[in-house]
Amino acid sequence: MSDNTNWETVTMDEGKKALVILDQTKLPNSIDTLFLTGQDEIWDAIKELKVRGAPAIGVAAAFGLYLAALEIDAGSFDEFYAELKKKAEYLNSSRPTAVNLSWALKRMEKAALANKEKTVPQIKEILRQECWKIKEEDTQTCRKIGEYALPLLKPGMGLLTHCNAGALATTKYGTATSVMYLGQERGYGFHVFCDETRPLLQGARLTSWELSSAGIDTTLICDNMAPSVMRKGWIDAVFVGCDRVAANGDTANKIGTSYVALAAKEYGIPFYVCAPSSTVDFECENGDGIVIEQRDPEEVTKKWYKQPMAPESVKVYNPAFDVTPAENITAIITEKGVARAPFKESLKKLLL
Amino acid sequence: MSDNTNWETVTMDEGKKALVILDQTKLPNSIDTLFLTGQDEIWDAIKELKVRGAPAIGVAAAFGLYLAALEIDAGSFDEFYAELKKKAEYLNSSRPTAVNLSWALKRMEKAALANKEKTVPQIKEILRQECWKIKEEDTQTCRKIGEYALPLLKPGMGLLTHCNAGALATTKYGTATSVMYLGQERGYGFHVFCDETRPLLQGARLTSWELSSAGIDTTLICDNMAPSVMRKGWIDAVFVGCDRVAANGDTANKIGTSYVALAAKEYGIPFYVCAPSSTVDFECENGDGIVIEQRDPEEVTKKWYKQPMAPESVKVYNPAFDVTPAENITAIITEKGVARAPFKESLKKLLL
Repeated sequence: MSDNTNWETVTMDEGKKALVILDQTKLPNSIDTLFLTGQDEIWDAIKELKVRGAPAIGVAAAFGLYLAALEIDAGSFDEFYAELKKKAEYLNSSRPTAVNLSWALKRMEKAALANKEKTVPQIKEILRQECWKIKEEDTQTCRKIGEYALPLLKPGMGLLTHCNAGALATTKYGTATSVMYLGQERGYGFHVFCDETRPLLQGARLTSWELSSAGIDTTLICDNMAPSVMRKGWIDAVFVGCDRVAANGDTANKIGTSYVALAAKEYGIPFYVCAPSSTVDFECENGDGIVIEQRDPEEVTKKWYKQPMAPESVKVYNPAFDVTPAENITAIITEKGVARAPFKESLKKLLL
Repeated sequence: MSDNTNWETVTMDEGKKALVILDQTKLPNSIDTLFLTGQDEIWDAIKELKVRGAPAIGVAAAFGLYLAALEIDAGSFDEFYAELKKKAEYLNSSRPTAVNLSWALKRMEKAALANKEKTVPQIKEILRQECWKIKEEDTQTCRKIGEYALPLLKPGMGLLTHCNAGALATTKYGTATSVMYLGQERGYGFHVFCDETRPLLQGARLTSWELSSAGIDTTLICDNMAPSVMRKGWIDAVFVGCDRVAANGDTANKIGTSYVALAAKEYGIPFYVCAPSSTVDFECENGDGIVIEQRDPEEVTKKWYKQPMAPESVKVYNPAFDVTPAENITAIITEKGVARAPFKESLKKLLL
């Protein structure tokens, strides 16, 4: 991913005191950069998925909280901290299920608390540095995942990915896409198939946009076409992101991911999960412990469409994620190295 | 499927001299019955998928050709037959790839030819009977498929189907859905999950509509959710239709069917293909011999949507069908009985 890409998923304009995001609800039809200054605007942007992807949301919230902190007019630390916590709580309520959101806000609070003996202006400066650090660390994490994945990519390969674990979900590089951007930096020729990823179409709207914008040879398919392209011999490896990895390697990711893993197994294609170490949950023994979010039926029947595509009376089951069993995963690639089966041992060794 | 359903996929109104179809392009948002009298109207209706599904198209064409024959003002058989062939050729050009279309038209021509010694009015009467016979035979074929499938359905089961191999694709009962309508006649309680079937959404628009209209307990899912409902233990059997069965049992059907078969295999769920014997192609040795139609990329990126869902520049691969290998099929259910592996022998024994 070259440094002259003309957009950033999420950053801050200190002069304008604004959170700066690429409006992902407008992609791929227009590339709108938003400068958000009010806390309500920032809250709405997270709520309405203008910025999305767990890492990107965390960074947006950290910038948002810093901007909120600037406005706090307090004489003492206690007064300042009480106000800061209130503002953090507000931002945190925008999407209560995203782990990185609360994680980033807590980290900002802790940075303040650790410096309670300093003056309020000094603490504000510390918070300024902290939110930039959160952003920079995310970029580094993604890049390292790409570096660990790179030996798995050979020039001429065909890759497949599902959903968007891309630059648009992080501050740069993405997780599943990092290997692609790093491969491109090295001048490898390769080809990427993107599953469109029903019902929210993140593969079509986001991944196919960001990869093709970066000049990567990209083909869009419907989710149900993955075995067809595999049967043709066009896919040499699958790279996907993840939302949560259990201690045994079972992985929750966007609905349909476990299906891709099945097809990959059938056709003898390696299936790689790209996971920042923060998504590995050692408290969670296996996939059965991962709660799957159910979403609005209208995402399936109405969203995007000119008119409803199913009768009102029909029931809809709309799980947002599924669990890929560890035995269908070739390797889990983190920023600290690559874990292979048995994952219960390898993940611990790598990360604890 | 009770006889008081208030619609028919395709029939004829002799008083109005009209082909009568349910406009499938309007489903599920309105239930429009069309009375088509002009040959151009009938041609357009087939072309624009107002009537669709190979068996239903064949019946529509037979009725259409009879209505065309009524208008032929000829003194001799030769004059009549030359005109009839011209009209058949015109109808046949509406969708050149559908086998049943040309098969039904040829059968009508042959009925005329076999009675060349009769008067033109007598031949017209023979054609009238022939087109009704084609319709009736299709209904019987579908019902028999359902009867052979019925012992596989137990009350309380959860079923899954893909695309629309339903009453809307035939004159009645459908192929994959016949077992469901017959089960309902017997008062079995059961539940059906319909894959929405990207990109043309036949499962959402048609199957979920016809099953729920008939009072069958129906849930719509996105294609990529099939393994999730299987993992939950909600599916006891899969029934799908087919477009072409090779001599070894490899089966071409709507894109995504082979994916469902993979998931069924993973979860130990029987996978049944419902195939009128006319779809078994003994000339075709195996699935590699089946040519897969590629369709317009805009079906994936633009059709149905308020605005494009992928960038203009991105490539799209859009195969209309895939091939399910025989080894992933539990049984092939025809109107002449049930074939099981090894299919090369069982299909021959059953059908030749």
